[in-house]
Amino acid sequence: LPLIDCLVTTDALAAVFSDESVLQAMLDFEVALAEAAAETGAIPGEAAAHIRQSARSETFDASEIAHAAHASATPAIPLVKALTERVRAVDQRSADSVHWSATSQDVTDSALVLLLARARQHVAADHARLTSKLRSLSDEHASTVMLARTLLQAAAPTTFGLKAAGWHAAAETSWQRVAAAWDDVTVVQYGGAAGTRAAAGPDAARVAARIAEKLGLRPSAPWHSNRDRLGAFVAACGLYVAALGKIARDVALLMQTEIAEVAERGGGSSAMPHKRNPSQSVLVLAAAARMPGVVSQSLTSMIHEHERSAGGGQAEWSIVADAVQTTGSAAAAAACLLDGLSIDAGRMRANLDATQGVIFAERASILLTRRLGRERAAQLVSDAVMRAQQHNQSFGDAIRSMPEAAAALDAKVLADFDRPETWLGDAEAIRRELLS
Amino acid sequence: LPLIDCLVTTDALAAVFSDESVLQAMLDFEVALAEAAAETGAIPGEAAAHIRQSARSETFDASEIAHAAHASATPAIPLVKALTERVRAVDQRSADSVHWSATSQDVTDSALVLLLARARQHVAADHARLTSKLRSLSDEHASTVMLARTLLQAAAPTTFGLKAAGWHAAAETSWQRVAAAWDDVTVVQYGGAAGTRAAAGPDAARVAARIAEKLGLRPSAPWHSNRDRLGAFVAACGLYVAALGKIARDVALLMQTEIAEVAERGGGSSAMPHKRNPSQSVLVLAAAARMPGVVSQSLTSMIHEHERSAGGGQAEWSIVADAVQTTGSAAAAAACLLDGLSIDAGRMRANLDATQGVIFAERASILLTRRLGRERAAQLVSDAVMRAQQHNQSFGDAIRSMPEAAAALDAKVLADFDRPETWLGDAEAIRRELLS
Amino acid sequence: LPLIDCLVTTDALAAVFSDESVLQAMLDFEVALAEAAAETGAIPGEAAAHIRQSARSETFDASEIAHAAHASATPAIPLVKALTERVRAVDQRSADSVHWSATSQDVTDSALVLLLARARQHVAADHARLTSKLRSLSDEHASTVMLARTLLQAAAPTTFGLKAAGWHAAAETSWQRVAAAWDDVTVVQYGGAAGTRAAAGPDAARVAARIAEKLGLRPSAPWHSNRDRLGAFVAACGLYVAALGKIARDVALLMQTEIAEVAERGGGSSAMPHKRNPSQSVLVLAAAARMPGVVSQSLTSMIHEHERSAGGGQAEWSIVADAVQTTGSAAAAAACLLDGLSIDAGRMRANLDATQGVIFAERASILLTRRLGRERAAQLVSDAVMRAQQHNQSFGDAIRSMPEAAAALDAKVLADFDRPETWLGDAEAIRRELLS
Amino acid sequence: LPLIDCLVTTDALAAVFSDESVLQAMLDFEVALAEAAAETGAIPGEAAAHIRQSARSETFDASEIAHAAHASATPAIPLVKALTERVRAVDQRSADSVHWSATSQDVTDSALVLLLARARQHVAADHARLTSKLRSLSDEHASTVMLARTLLQAAAPTTFGLKAAGWHAAAETSWQRVAAAWDDVTVVQYGGAAGTRAAAGPDAARVAARIAEKLGLRPSAPWHSNRDRLGAFVAACGLYVAALGKIARDVALLMQTEIAEVAERGGGSSAMPHKRNPSQSVLVLAAAARMPGVVSQSLTSMIHEHERSAGGGQAEWSIVADAVQTTGSAAAAAACLLDGLSIDAGRMRANLDATQGVIFAERASILLTRRLGRERAAQLVSDAVMRAQQHNQSFGDAIRSMPEAAAALDAKVLADFDRPETWLGDAEAIRRELLS
Repeated sequence: LPLIDCLVTTDALAAVFSDESVLQAMLDFEVALAEAAAETGAIPGEAAAHIRQSARSETFDASEIAHAAHASATPAIPLVKALTERVRAVDQRSADSVHWSATSQDVTDSALVLLLARARQHVAADHARLTSKLRSLSDEHASTVMLARTLLQAAAPTTFGLKAAGWHAAAETSWQRVAAAWDDVTVVQYGGAAGTRAAAGPDAARVAARIAEKLGLRPSAPWHSNRDRLGAFVAACGLYVAALGKIARDVALLMQTEIAEVAERGGGSSAMPHKRNPSQSVLVLAAAARMPGVVSQSLTSMIHEHERSAGGGQAEWSIVADAVQTTGSAAAAAACLLDGLSIDAGRMRANLDATQGVIFAERASILLTRRLGRERAAQLVSDAVMRAQQHNQSFGDAIRSMPEAAAALDAKVLADFDRPETWLGDAEAIRRELLS
Repeated sequence: LPLIDCLVTTDALAAVFSDESVLQAMLDFEVALAEAAAETGAIPGEAAAHIRQSARSETFDASEIAHAAHASATPAIPLVKALTERVRAVDQRSADSVHWSATSQDVTDSALVLLLARARQHVAADHARLTSKLRSLSDEHASTVMLARTLLQAAAPTTFGLKAAGWHAAAETSWQRVAAAWDDVTVVQYGGAAGTRAAAGPDAARVAARIAEKLGLRPSAPWHSNRDRLGAFVAACGLYVAALGKIARDVALLMQTEIAEVAERGGGSSAMPHKRNPSQSVLVLAAAARMPGVVSQSLTSMIHEHERSAGGGQAEWSIVADAVQTTGSAAAAAACLLDGLSIDAGRMRANLDATQGVIFAERASILLTRRLGRERAAQLVSDAVMRAQQHNQSFGDAIRSMPEAAAALDAKVLADFDRPETWLGDAEAIRRELLS
Repeated sequence: LPLIDCLVTTDALAAVFSDESVLQAMLDFEVALAEAAAETGAIPGEAAAHIRQSARSETFDASEIAHAAHASATPAIPLVKALTERVRAVDQRSADSVHWSATSQDVTDSALVLLLARARQHVAADHARLTSKLRSLSDEHASTVMLARTLLQAAAPTTFGLKAAGWHAAAETSWQRVAAAWDDVTVVQYGGAAGTRAAAGPDAARVAARIAEKLGLRPSAPWHSNRDRLGAFVAACGLYVAALGKIARDVALLMQTEIAEVAERGGGSSAMPHKRNPSQSVLVLAAAARMPGVVSQSLTSMIHEHERSAGGGQAEWSIVADAVQTTGSAAAAAACLLDGLSIDAGRMRANLDATQGVIFAERASILLTRRLGRERAAQLVSDAVMRAQQHNQSFGDAIRSMPEAAAALDAKVLADFDRPETWLGDAEAIRRELLS
Repeated sequence: LPLIDCLVTTDALAAVFSDESVLQAMLDFEVALAEAAAETGAIPGEAAAHIRQSARSETFDASEIAHAAHASATPAIPLVKALTERVRAVDQRSADSVHWSATSQDVTDSALVLLLARARQHVAADHARLTSKLRSLSDEHASTVMLARTLLQAAAPTTFGLKAAGWHAAAETSWQRVAAAWDDVTVVQYGGAAGTRAAAGPDAARVAARIAEKLGLRPSAPWHSNRDRLGAFVAACGLYVAALGKIARDVALLMQTEIAEVAERGGGSSAMPHKRNPSQSVLVLAAAARMPGVVSQSLTSMIHEHERSAGGGQAEWSIVADAVQTTGSAAAAAACLLDGLSIDAGRMRANLDATQGVIFAERASILLTRRLGRERAAQLVSDAVMRAQQHNQSFGDAIRSMPEAAAALDAKVLADFDRPETWLGDAEAIRRELLS
């Protein structure tokens, strides 16, 4: 967990993209390649065994390989060189079989995909946690009335259950897309120098299939310069983080001192002992501030020249690692946020009541228009709003005290006029639809 | 077709997003709403008729509405006002029924979605044209040998058929995503002030369903602050344009004066009579330079506060219109580019031959390593490369003239050594897989 | 003012980038070129006169030119063709002098720069308006005490004067950058086919200087593929809009129903008669949601191949027009927002008081630590916060009622302990520094 | 140098942003604060001494702090806690003085700025190296004739000296902007909880000034939520990387096998022994693919709420570290690229000659139009182009062999007609202007 990036990744994902893990992923490809090649007789079985035995990341110096990568614009070349040396130390001839028939991008792409596969469980677990919590929050607060707010102004009543269901719907839909993209992208890369697998001879397809199998990846035609699946994965992450960002923004707003309808378990302040901060919301929002840029980097990098790119591809490791870690950081923080979220239904009601009922102006408007026409209705509503805002009379009482308005409304409607429970429309039906 | 944007849209799409079309889309929503409301008895049938009759875009002043939109940060308010005036001129009471139960965002979102639905056919037609052409190019050139190029350097042989199949695969896969997103996003928006449809009363769901039906859209729960489908649509467009951008980049590179393996029908120059420019490639690449930024705008704008956003949503009309037009512009230019593309198989072969066979160095390497070990093989290959680059002897002849190398290779392999047709590996199988 | 973009531009700037204005800017370049060429004797004086006379935008069909631009990926070719036809209709020989020695990009770049020059006054006027208002707001409210809020939680006292001064500082500093970039970018483009002005003969430099002079632009070496000044202009706009976005975000937050410390003059709602929306803030925030993407498009497009780009440059008209209009829209809305902003100093104080003084916890902490050590101080502060939050006693009273705490503080400090005016630190000095 | 990011940073910059360096930068702030506070008598001198003595990064566990940062959304809180514990172990009372009067963001912002200051020399050195090389390349090749290429097609003659001068101009101008931004941004952050320095008492301004002095930074008003200078720094980096990206794109294109006018010292391939790749260009282009997204992240993150942000600010460490490392990586690779760049003037001439002189079609056009009118001139030029392209006659010879054309041109002009040296226009004057 590098300190400079500590707020935009998680322990688990930082470990997935650590030097040792990255090294091992590259080595795992070389081992799978060697064993697949040995199975088809392309290289000696004992060479494959020597390669496996030498391909332990802890014996490599990641910094050295990282440094040497600059000369050739790929870490694969120094990695293969270092592996070859280690194999040669064991057996001279076996060294000839290292990296047989492959090209640098076969290693770097397959390694990246392996890392993606390894990262998945961490993000998926946090997603499961957060959606389960959202669903139960929504159910629990199906009839907790609160203010709907539009353009940050009090609008009309809604329920917290509906709000949470909306959060759930976006999180879940966009996660489905992430999950599908994750399935899609975890395919082996094996194409050789030109993407034709010429060096692998007649058994090339079988070698490709076996490598995939050994690595737990799906087989694929070479995709050296077709980055569609990678780009789709990053874009799906971007959409998912935006969905979590909306939740976090709402929570941070609802948790404002003056609103205080929800509260995170909270983080403290180094200067102010009284504070309880929306720390997890803030971490999600930090991720949401980064992801659009990461997605744009990914899209820009997708235009690979001819059979291998000059620039775009070399930026991808960082871009994809950023995408996954930012996404995982958002999911972890969102899960933690929801786990610790307390809901203050009383305060929700109090904030609603504090509007003095002017949030029923639309209701008055639509009901009075039917009887009195729009212009007269507008006049009456406007008078009632003014009374509520200036004379400390509630909007409902103002309406009830205006003979013309009162006469135009059913007695029951009039009585219930400013009871928010009677002005929730289809909130519950919509809530259920969103959760289903 | 605004002049300032002439290179990033098309006539057809500029028309879809023209003032008249946008106005009409908003009015179409108001008409569908009124008719649906009349069917459930919420407003008089004659009011609906008057609304329909008044809702003709040609009688509205788009500039005035656009100007007035600044006061309330939405064009819906002045549009509704203008419509109400027109209806009132016909029938005083009917005016009361305009925009019944709806909120501004119901109008603007539904209108946007209607425009998207109308834009679809244009982009789809160009996509169909371009993929069909790609498929036939690939089939026709299944065995046209050319240089694969990696990092812009001659690498090894491949076929133009495989290259075109790769283009096809990315274009087609990413189009499937666009098409699915287009299905997904063309849903009605109807939620009323707070997204609960409270003002619509007990028939709200039926009204919603009928509006959708009348507009040819799918029904949906209100999505005022859940922008997932819109964001996914824009992201899918971004991925698709990247796929087309890769084609265009390759074509522009292949069409360079010194390479000249393909040629666009071509655009001219205002100064240089001899020039034939990759004009359509350039238009696709201009679109590809814009889309990543558009997608990042869209992702940034997705974080809507509470039940209606303060900022993000107000930017969306422009962002989505940019996305569709940029995408359509790329598809149109790509279709035009491929329609007029000529392939010079002779030049492809000549460029390959001009490498003096050094592109077979990998082949030599892998074959000689098997017999002589990697170090000795590397030495021989390096000598042969030097001879080819400095002494005008072909790499194949150099290898054949080296007794140690010659002895290490089969006679047949030796003879065929620098025939590219014998070093294409699985190119044809992969090509077929990519097209399937 | 196109309806689809109505919330992201202004009337004045839409006019600058209208078809007629763009056409005329291109024609103005052709006229200046012809007159400069005639002055050096390169073309006949009467040809220049005929060109000037024919170069009236109202006689051209912008749509036709926009449409034809697709064939050559530049509007300059059809424009030059159309101009040549018009001149030929007047005088056959004069037609030969149209576009003498120039290349398409000379026209399109110079036209773009002319449009930028014309746009400047509009944005500058709004900027002047908004900073003047910020300065007077800051002065007026130099001692208006309010809550500072960190992570959206009540933190400690500050003044509205300081807040407004912070807004001013960022707006003014970033505007200085925009203004400098505007000076920098308004240079003529004149380089001919290869950027060497070869076709212009020995007087090339003089022609270049005269064109610049006639167009009111500064002279420059050709910059066909050096887009630094254009990129710097767009980036400066991005920074400026971010500064305005921060103001708008703060205003929208302060205007929330539950906080209500400031109010925009306000826009209404189509459904809810009681609402007063932060409409101008919302327009600024819509601009702020778009600009980062526009800047990234601009940076991506800056990488022009060799002497003229294949893609990047062709996207620039739209990108730069977006940048200016988005910026101008933000400035106009911000000016309007500040013009109509009312400040409720009483509510600011009431919100501060509503914290029950817990915002002085840091003060207590620092003062008590000095006497009692950090651990004991922390314990006492924590007790006092709890009393304030649970027992409706103010934090100050709680401290005063704790003998140990009371004994540790000066009597005067103790008395003033929860008077925010005595805990403003250097607020006023910093405010003045920020305004200077 | 983390392996996953090895192609987008450098050893030196990775060290600047390493755990130890980041930790030490935060500790350096705490030490400077303590010493400044001691000087004004706010804390005991011996406390400052104990703090200095305890603030050695090697005694802290960066991972632990990074992990703990998630709870409060800032690494400052666990860092201060860990420092306090270390000081307490030395002297109980001194621990009370740790972090006196400061807030978390004072630590994190000042630390970030210190890291920026430390990074500067590395990037500056590479910039100096690359511009010096560009200048000497330009001078050396002032009269090396080559093809200008527009839209990737042969256009007209230019010189490599002019091309290199254009590279230099953009790199140098944009670096001036980076350097100015670097001066601007390296200011101390010290504002306390609310940005008023209330906790620091009457000597606050003096403490602020002394902290800055001790850290080698400039003083500043608190800028907790004014991110203009930081944003401007990142944007300047973006413009600079784009300038380097243009150089790298041109080099990669010129180095293509079929063009071969320049060559990098070159990196190899893991599969193909004959290859020499534009590896350093590729690294610069990878940086250029990332930077627009980083700048957009930075702009998005600039909108900080009120006195401290909820999201934007928490993303900044990563964004700024990405920006500097990407920029430094581009500068290092560009310097290395230019250091090793060889220029093949003969090949430049050969490629020009291979156009058969059709690049002089514009020249013919402009000269013949003067005598024969545009239409006739166009006809003759078109005939000559056709002869050159189809009949292996040079364009010059074709013109010379056409009596009408020959008669229309001076004898000297006719003789020199296809000598590129006579069609360079102001290339040399412009070159000198660009270098000055």
